[in-house]
Amino acid sequence: MDPEEFRKAGHQVVDWIADYLANIRDYPVLPVTSPGQLAASLPPSAPEAGEPIERILDDFAERILPHVNHWNHPRFHGYFSVSASGPGILGEMLMSALNVNAMLWKSCPAATELEQVTLEWLRQWLDLPVGWFGIIYDTASTSVMHAIAAAREAAFPENRTGGGLRDAVCYTSAHAHNSFEKGAISLGIGQRNVRLIGVDDNFAMRADLLAAAVEEDRQAGRKPFCVCATVGTTSTTAIDPVAAIADIAEAAGMWLHVDAAYAGPTAILPEMRQHFAGCERADSFVLNPHKWLFTPIDISVLYTRRPDILKRAFSLGAEYLKTAQDSSAVNYMDYGVQLGRRFRALKLWFVMRYFGREGISAILRDHLEFAQELAGWIRADSRFEVMAPVSFSLVCFRLTSSNEANQRLLDAINASGRAFLSHTVLNGIFTLRFAIGNIKTNRDDLAGTWSQIQQCAAAL
Amino acid sequence: MDPEEFRKAGHQVVDWIADYLANIRDYPVLPVTSPGQLAASLPPSAPEAGEPIERILDDFAERILPHVNHWNHPRFHGYFSVSASGPGILGEMLMSALNVNAMLWKSCPAATELEQVTLEWLRQWLDLPVGWFGIIYDTASTSVMHAIAAAREAAFPENRTGGGLRDAVCYTSAHAHNSFEKGAISLGIGQRNVRLIGVDDNFAMRADLLAAAVEEDRQAGRKPFCVCATVGTTSTTAIDPVAAIADIAEAAGMWLHVDAAYAGPTAILPEMRQHFAGCERADSFVLNPHKWLFTPIDISVLYTRRPDILKRAFSLGAEYLKTAQDSSAVNYMDYGVQLGRRFRALKLWFVMRYFGREGISAILRDHLEFAQELAGWIRADSRFEVMAPVSFSLVCFRLTSSNEANQRLLDAINASGRAFLSHTVLNGIFTLRFAIGNIKTNRDDLAGTWSQIQQCAAAL
Repeated sequence: MDPEEFRKAGHQVVDWIADYLANIRDYPVLPVTSPGQLAASLPPSAPEAGEPIERILDDFAERILPHVNHWNHPRFHGYFSVSASGPGILGEMLMSALNVNAMLWKSCPAATELEQVTLEWLRQWLDLPVGWFGIIYDTASTSVMHAIAAAREAAFPENRTGGGLRDAVCYTSAHAHNSFEKGAISLGIGQRNVRLIGVDDNFAMRADLLAAAVEEDRQAGRKPFCVCATVGTTSTTAIDPVAAIADIAEAAGMWLHVDAAYAGPTAILPEMRQHFAGCERADSFVLNPHKWLFTPIDISVLYTRRPDILKRAFSLGAEYLKTAQDSSAVNYMDYGVQLGRRFRALKLWFVMRYFGREGISAILRDHLEFAQELAGWIRADSRFEVMAPVSFSLVCFRLTSSNEANQRLLDAINASGRAFLSHTVLNGIFTLRFAIGNIKTNRDDLAGTWSQIQQCAAAL
Repeated sequence: MDPEEFRKAGHQVVDWIADYLANIRDYPVLPVTSPGQLAASLPPSAPEAGEPIERILDDFAERILPHVNHWNHPRFHGYFSVSASGPGILGEMLMSALNVNAMLWKSCPAATELEQVTLEWLRQWLDLPVGWFGIIYDTASTSVMHAIAAAREAAFPENRTGGGLRDAVCYTSAHAHNSFEKGAISLGIGQRNVRLIGVDDNFAMRADLLAAAVEEDRQAGRKPFCVCATVGTTSTTAIDPVAAIADIAEAAGMWLHVDAAYAGPTAILPEMRQHFAGCERADSFVLNPHKWLFTPIDISVLYTRRPDILKRAFSLGAEYLKTAQDSSAVNYMDYGVQLGRRFRALKLWFVMRYFGREGISAILRDHLEFAQELAGWIRADSRFEVMAPVSFSLVCFRLTSSNEANQRLLDAINASGRAFLSHTVLNGIFTLRFAIGNIKTNRDDLAGTWSQIQQCAAAL
């Protein structure tokens, strides 16, 4: 594709995106489709001869788009609601065009250094300790796996060479994201060595139960080495007592990882800092700019006070990757599984500069306020109940009725195409999750969706 | 950023990219910079107030770009040379704008189904066995780690629960990419249980040495479980004898993984298929469309004949991720570490349709031919020698002189800004690597770079 053909098609795509973003409310949030329907509508084989870009773009809009679940929609409230903000998309366009691989400083100095700079900027915004080392991974699942691997390296340095680690135990709450468990399984720790600690009435990890589990494992000759606290769990955005967990971790010589993948950005707000008390004592800390910092997926940031350990876990020389700057620059490939690394810092740099701390803070505050407002409406309607503390921008609620009725309510809301919510189960109780986080969600959307929910409930 | 502001800035960015691609030859391939230089030139903190997008774009061009190593440059011949083709960039723009997370079928049916469709199309092009299951990961490092994890699950199904696997041994060639070793270390296999098998004069794994190592490990009571053959190694693009390795793997009950991250796309060409003989017997097979299939980084494809095993290794239910389609659709999150998944299939779909099989084949044939041509020029100049068979598009060569002289030659070429090459060391001999793979490289570039190399050699 010559540059002029790219220019022409590129302008079309930009216009399409601008129109899409402008008219996003006209789309059904959730597509009406069933498994295999899109696949069956596409040719069984790729074309022999190339096709004009016009036709591909038309097919994208006519064939692919009707099967898209619109995460960009201001009434998308499933999972965690995220945003591809304009500056983030622009940054990603440039990343894609430059197409660098930032495995080494030398392979793209700009990518490595902008990663260092933007993560230092972000560290300041989050009020995390001076000197922490930041690195970008793709997803929080990858980040947490790296944190556990670093914890293993810290506690059992011989494991890297010898393997065969037995009875090494790690801990997290029963409400933690299952990527912690998956990471531990992947690393060969063994699922039976992952303790899912019970939670209190607010779904936060009980430090007393953690202490008891650690003690029991010690008594039995097992080796506690890692604990993961969560600030903002996936089901309910519960806040584990990080300071108390840090005490236990320190006493037991365990690595403390804090998963703030979703809620982390709120540490930018001074009034929210109390939720992060104790995080300054963590060995590693994760937040995802692609979740609630208006940066397109994927970008997860891990901070650690112990980059030397992370590097010891993952660095592995290869002659074809040696450079003259190996002692004077950071080669990010030494800090992780993945050799290939996109220039992800660029989109974060666009977002941070475009909005500034004030702009980001204002949006976060809106979302936090929307959640309180919604919770108020729910509490005011006697048919409904709020199921968990609303500490951030997620509201867990349900009809004061059967699980089956609530499942039907959820299905009715989602089938309407007017909003998309997801669910969780809390102590056996089917619960709807209303996650706020899209940059375009406004009060009208919120009120409209609540009214839609009320109508669906009335029609059950 | 409202849609109209995005539209305006988006058009500017498209124009910038089109100009960049049109004028790419005017840029020095390698920037003149040193560690810390860019970082020192940027503000120590992010802005409090948001900044106009104009200023950010200006800063990108004026401050960031001079520190970029231009992987897009047609004279970028380091590592493996890659391409962000126009249709690939357009696909990525749309991915970024849609910003879906394809963890579940339901979370974006289009992303899951287009992944299935494009990977089936690609499977046909590559002439891999009917029925193989395809999945997109970010990088080949991630793919190979998943392959080893699947091998572990196949051989030691109790490990997922119990951990503590000891004396499980895996094998690859001493010339394999070190991501295999890193993957095994990460998974807790232990570096000492990774055997790096010796190579023959062509840098291909010696099957007899593999057989002997497996036998020795068995005799010693250890448990061989996985072998990785490479078609197109990183240092020299050597081709391991896959069929002979498959015999050994079958006899020993080992999982056979084939790493064709770089060379895989050439299986599209019937005349190159002989290099892939035996791959049809693999348990898993990897190629990276971001390497030599003109798709922007990152996208790595893993095929496996045993998706059930891969799923058994990684699936882990969570209530908040259960859907009504769990039994009727593929939820790709069940097949890997990462929960978050971008809509990567979209950019591959753009590339495959835009070029078609004929278009892709023609470019690959050009690159293969360029490599032969270059090797011919090198052989015709008595100061130089070719150091390894030229089976694909990489030429390994050197001055018939000292290592130190060759290092100086490499530095001089790279310092010229006219071309970028990287190096390897073969049997202690410092060797230059000239990797061809950029879609814009033409015969003039090739001849110009060779002439530049000759001049640099003359000036030493």
